[in-house]
Order: sequence, then structure tokens, then C-alpha cells
Amino acid sequence: MRALNVYTKSREQFARAEKVIPSGVYGHLGPAEGCFIPVEAFPFFSERASGTYFWDVDGNRFIDYMCAFGPNVLGYNDPDVDEAARKQAELGNCVTSPSTRMIDFAELLVDTVHTADWAFFAKNGNDVTTMAVMAARAYNHRKKIVFFKGYYHGISPWTQKMDYPGILEEDVRHNIYVDWNDFEGLAKVFEENRGQIAAVISQPYMHGNFADNEFPKEGFWQKVRKLCTETNTVLVIDDVRAGFRMDLAGSDHYFGFEADLICFCKALANGYNVSALCGKDFLKNTVSSLSYTGSYWLSAVPFAAGIACIEKMKRLDMPKILIEKGARLKDGLIEKAEKFGFDLRVSGMPSLFYLRIADDPTLMLHQEWVAECVKRGVFFTNHHNHFINAALSDEDIAETLAVAEEAFEVVRKRHPKEV
Amino acid sequence: MRALNVYTKSREQFARAEKVIPSGVYGHLGPAEGCFIPVEAFPFFSERASGTYFWDVDGNRFIDYMCAFGPNVLGYNDPDVDEAARKQAELGNCVTSPSTRMIDFAELLVDTVHTADWAFFAKNGNDVTTMAVMAARAYNHRKKIVFFKGYYHGISPWTQKMDYPGILEEDVRHNIYVDWNDFEGLAKVFEENRGQIAAVISQPYMHGNFADNEFPKEGFWQKVRKLCTETNTVLVIDDVRAGFRMDLAGSDHYFGFEADLICFCKALANGYNVSALCGKDFLKNTVSSLSYTGSYWLSAVPFAAGIACIEKMKRLDMPKILIEKGARLKDGLIEKAEKFGFDLRVSGMPSLFYLRIADDPTLMLHQEWVAECVKRGVFFTNHHNHFINAALSDEDIAETLAVAEEAFEVVRKRHPKEV
Repeated sequence: MRALNVYTKSREQFARAEKVIPSGVYGHLGPAEGCFIPVEAFPFFSERASGTYFWDVDGNRFIDYMCAFGPNVLGYNDPDVDEAARKQAELGNCVTSPSTRMIDFAELLVDTVHTADWAFFAKNGNDVTTMAVMAARAYNHRKKIVFFKGYYHGISPWTQKMDYPGILEEDVRHNIYVDWNDFEGLAKVFEENRGQIAAVISQPYMHGNFADNEFPKEGFWQKVRKLCTETNTVLVIDDVRAGFRMDLAGSDHYFGFEADLICFCKALANGYNVSALCGKDFLKNTVSSLSYTGSYWLSAVPFAAGIACIEKMKRLDMPKILIEKGARLKDGLIEKAEKFGFDLRVSGMPSLFYLRIADDPTLMLHQEWVAECVKRGVFFTNHHNHFINAALSDEDIAETLAVAEEAFEVVRKRHPKEV
Repeated sequence: MRALNVYTKSREQFARAEKVIPSGVYGHLGPAEGCFIPVEAFPFFSERASGTYFWDVDGNRFIDYMCAFGPNVLGYNDPDVDEAARKQAELGNCVTSPSTRMIDFAELLVDTVHTADWAFFAKNGNDVTTMAVMAARAYNHRKKIVFFKGYYHGISPWTQKMDYPGILEEDVRHNIYVDWNDFEGLAKVFEENRGQIAAVISQPYMHGNFADNEFPKEGFWQKVRKLCTETNTVLVIDDVRAGFRMDLAGSDHYFGFEADLICFCKALANGYNVSALCGKDFLKNTVSSLSYTGSYWLSAVPFAAGIACIEKMKRLDMPKILIEKGARLKDGLIEKAEKFGFDLRVSGMPSLFYLRIADDPTLMLHQEWVAECVKRGVFFTNHHNHFINAALSDEDIAETLAVAEEAFEVVRKRHPKEV
């Protein structure tokens, strides 16, 4: 049996953090988030990262299946991306007038992403999902936005829930929520709100939290596309999470349809701070008309990094590599689970797989198993999809499976199977 | 007479940009923005930057008084900030678990900013102004927000105007607009909306566009502070633009009052991508309760850069230096203007001075003069405040005054003074 991680320094640092930072650590990575119960199994602070690993402040090394929640796609500190960034930094980063790297990057996205006639750059995924909704409303002068239940499109008021702190009823008044994969439900909503729906916004498939991830039914997207076209409704794909891990031409392309607007962020520049809205020509003037900018949005270093990242992903056919690695991991995990009598469900794209032990509807068994993996240096998370990066080696997959097996064994001993 | 800049390559690159980027160049820096009329005097793309200069793609050098619209406070590519960033980048930037640099940075801000009991980090100024408004609404369960006319608080729907493209009436329904420095007007609004005002949001002084910048009247802020305290209204200071160029303890401190929440961005990390919301203890739990995060928000490189930037600014008493440089420039510019019979008004803090030739209410004379300056390598802008950075030397100021004089002379020849 492997030695279990100790998190003494992480806890000491968290005590410092709590004094000067609301929640201590915010977002998914803090102890306040349900995704990370049981918190005692997780480190709070990292010291360094390289390739597919990070080391926490106690010196524990993790094979990292969260990849900074997506941005790490080529491996932490990828030499090609970092070299491009370093060269640009010597020239300039955040300067009064933008660098032509901005044009180069836009041209590269237009060449790469099949639905992109143009690109607009910002900083957060949330910046571009918000811009997409504003663009749709400005384009067809309608108010209502259709979401699929289980969605996540960022943290602006319009995309939160009415009962969340700080959100007004007015912020979400024109939001309509439809079940994922329910085309009839969607068609009904269009019928009931004729001429009022500005946009449908959706992830390319349902990769929400706390539930198995779900692909579109056969023909679903084609029917949605047709309905949007017929009603002059803007179809927005939020590819912030899945983008470039399924298909470099966009996840809409993977499923054989074309979005009107598509939002990218995480895997766009291997961790350098940039997001992008890409779209169709018919929306270019509308996007130009919006009042939308920010202090760092024209910074050249993330553009240079993004160019190097996309070029490398194209050269290596990256989604194929990531999907193949994820598929091997998936098969191995299911096999290890079966050995100890667990029904491990692995859903979504193998390059951003979601895990659930289905034997226990409370999900507590799943949390126990994840905790045992993390304490042994394999950084899984409880109820959020994972991410594969290019630096994950065969040895890392083998080590992951060995740890997973040990974790299944420990959990099974604690919860013997009824016979 | 100096040779005038030629912008052949800037124009060629803009033609490329227009094809793949909405507006070609967006924000203030694009030809679509009123601030930059007449566009023929300005370059569109920079090649490199160092200290107080940037060079455009045609090789023209500019003494840059826009400082990337604020972020450049110590000089482009400041060696101390860049070294701190480089060292952190070798360890890790955007990693699954945050670095303890986040805690160090929060502690430093709590030590530096007098109203800060805690700090929360994001990416855009807009992220933290939006968070401030959400926090206020979550705290006192009210909806209305008071703005001072002429404000700018970012680009989220709640802070735009109803007639802007993509904005709904619902987005701004609870906004109340009061004249700057009109305490009686504000008190009346509070009276009429008793128990309904969540927050007052304001810049520390009115540094809006297209108008002379205006300091608070004597006692104005103290009366506003008292009114907010008595009514349990959250007082939010948007120090994104002026922050650290007036007072390292916050621009509220400069004017002798305490905000409840204060928003920082531009000068926080010398161009590295980070913003911060700081605030009082009584709002810490509320801020913790908000659903608010982003893909790159825990990145360590901007934290390391921000620490180096703030520490250097404290060591050098930076606002004093910037204000002194700005004051000398201001005196010189007014003198040169007088020599040719122009009434040049210089308003706002000298470290972020606003310029206007008052002889012509259409502002066209001012635009002509700015254009002549820019064509001679002094990068002023028409109707937006400017920014001073620490690398601006006595020689740069002398060169600026020589260029300004030549520009006044040219404009005067074109528009002889009536006698």
C-alpha cells in the first residue's frame, strides 16, 4: 500500500489565506465547493507544476487530471508555448496600441475553426459568453435566451440562478430552461415564444456537474440548427470547456453542425490568459457595434502563446491524442472497478471524462474513492469532468490505474459487498 | 520643424485586421472610437515597448502618455516586475491548485490599502465592479444602484446605457443617475428611494471622457460616506483608473474617507493581468457567498508581478513621483499654449491629467493640436485622461514640451487669432 499524502503546510497556508481572502480559496478549489468534499483528502496550494504533474506545498506530487480546470492542454510549462510567450514579452505585452500578433491569432482561428469568419479576444470565458448574448440581442432585437438545464456559462448575473446571492429577478427574467436533448420541448418553447427568442446557448454536449455527461441524440443538433435558422435565432456554442479537446475545428464541427457564435477559453493558449468569441460574418457588424473592451484585452503575450498552442495542436492532431489517452484510461479504470465489484460509469468525451461510481445514489461512495486516489497522488475530482493533457504518459496512466485499484480495494474493504 | 510620422504599415495591417476582427481594432484604440478622431494622426499597431516609449510597426517612436490606458505605471518591461514574473513562471502559472503567492498578494494589499480587510482577485476591472454590485445587493437585499453621471465602470450590461446595442431595459432598470458633486441631489434620491438603495458606485473623482475632470467639493465624500453609513448602503469606489497614481492606500484615503469596497486593476501589476476587489470585514462573508470565479483567476504569475509592482511603488513613494512629473508637464504645456494664445485647461490629478483647449467648444481645435503632437511622436489622446509612468524622464518632458510648442504653432498658423 502506498503512503498517504499529508497536508500540514496546505492547512497552515489555508489558515493564513482565510484571514485575507474571502473563502480562503475561491472557486471549485476551495473547501466551500461541494465538488471537493471530503476536503481532508485535497491539497489547497501548489508549489510548482510541470508537464502533467503539480506538487503541493507539502511536496506531494499529483498526476493532475484537472489541468487547471482545462487550460493545461499541452502540459504545464510547454517549452514551445513558453518560448513564444517569452519572445513576445521581450518586445511588449500590454501596450497602448496592440501588436499585430492579434491579427495573426485571429487569422489562425479563422483558418482553424470552421464556423469562424472572425475572432474577438477577451480574458474570461465569461467575457465571451456574455458578449455572445449581447450580440444576439443586438442583432435580432429580442430578449429571451434559451438554456439547457445543467448548463454552466460563467458567472455574470444573466447566467446565474435567481436564488443565488446578489442576483436579481430582472437579471434572469428572460431566461428559458429546457431539458437537454429534448428537441420537442425546445420546439414547444419556440412555439410559445414566437419571435421573442434572441439566442439558444449551449455546451456542445451536456458536461455538467453532479451527473453523467450526455452526448446529443442522433440528429439533435441538426434539428436545433434548422429551428434557429428558420426563426432567425442566434445559435451560440459555449466551447469554453470542451474546445480543442474534441475537434480543433470546434466541437460543433465534431457533431456535424455550425454554430453562429462559438466561445473559446481554456485550451486556447495553454494557460496564458485569453478567451475568444468567433462567429459568422452576418454577426460581425453587430459585434462591432457593442461597447465591449477591457484593460488587458489587447495584450500580446497571450496572443503569441495562443498562436504557438493552436499551431502545435494542429501539427500533432491533438484531440485525437487526448481522446486516445483518455480512452485507455477509461477502459483501465472500468476494469479495476469491476475487479472489486464497482460499477464505474465513465461519460463524456474521453479527453474530458466524467466519473461516477453508480453503486451508490448518494455519491458518497464515489467521493470516498476519489479521496483515496487523491491521497495517493492521483488528482481526480468528485463531481466535475476531468481533463487530459498531452504530457500524460503511458507510465502515468499505468500509475493512475495502480492507484485507482488500491483505492477501490480500500473502499471495498470499508464497504464489503452484500452477498 | 520635425518630420511627421508616416503610418503606411499601420494602415496595411489594419486592412488585414478588418477582415478577421470586428472593428479591426476594438476599444478606444480603434478608428470607431470618438476619442481618436482624427484617426489619420494615430498608429494602429505597436511593434515593441520599453520604459515610457512604444514603437509602432512603421518604426515611429512615441513618448506614451496613455500607458496602455493605465497598466504601465513603472515603465514598460520594468526589470523588477518582469524578474518576479519570470521566476514565478518557471514554477507555475495557471495550475489546478493556487500558489501561495495569492495569499502574499492579498496580505500586501491589506497592509497597503487602508480600507482593505481582505482582497479577492479576478482579471478585469469589470469583473470586480460587477462583483462589488452583486455583493452590495446580496448584503442588504436591495436592488438600486446610484451612479454619478459621466461614470465608467466597465462593460457589463448593468453598467451600460439602455440605448446601447445588446442592453435590455431590465439590465439597467434599478440604476439611478445623480450629478457629480451634487450632494443635495444624492440626498434627495436617498429620500425618494428609502431602504431601496443597495450601493453608491463612483470613481474617486470625476475623470470621465469629453469633459474637464472634476475633484470632489470640500466635504462631499465625507457627507456621502455618512449618508451611506446611516442608510446601510454599500459605498463602492471604482479605483480601476486612478488607483495607485494618487495614493497607495487608495484614492478614497487621498480624499479622507473610507470606501466599503474598492476596485483595482490597471496599475496593480504593471500590465500583468490581474484585478482586485478589496473591502471591509463586514462584507467578507457576503463576498464568500457569491458564485464568482474564472479559468485564469488563480494564476500565480500576475500575483508575483503585482507583489513586485506594489512593493516597488511603496519603496519609491510612486504617486508622489508621478504627480510631480505630471505637474511639471502641466505647467510647461500651459505655458506653451499661452505663448500661442491658447487657453489649455489641464484637469484631474497631474498623474492622470486631462487636456482640453478651451478656445473652441466643438473640441475640434483640441483634436487638431493632439493630432499634431501624435504625428511628432508624443502620444496624447483627444478626450480621455492621460497617464504618467515612472520611466518618464526630464528629457522626455522637455521633448514633449518642444513638440507641444511646435503643434500649437502649427494650429495657430492654420487658425490665426482674431484681433
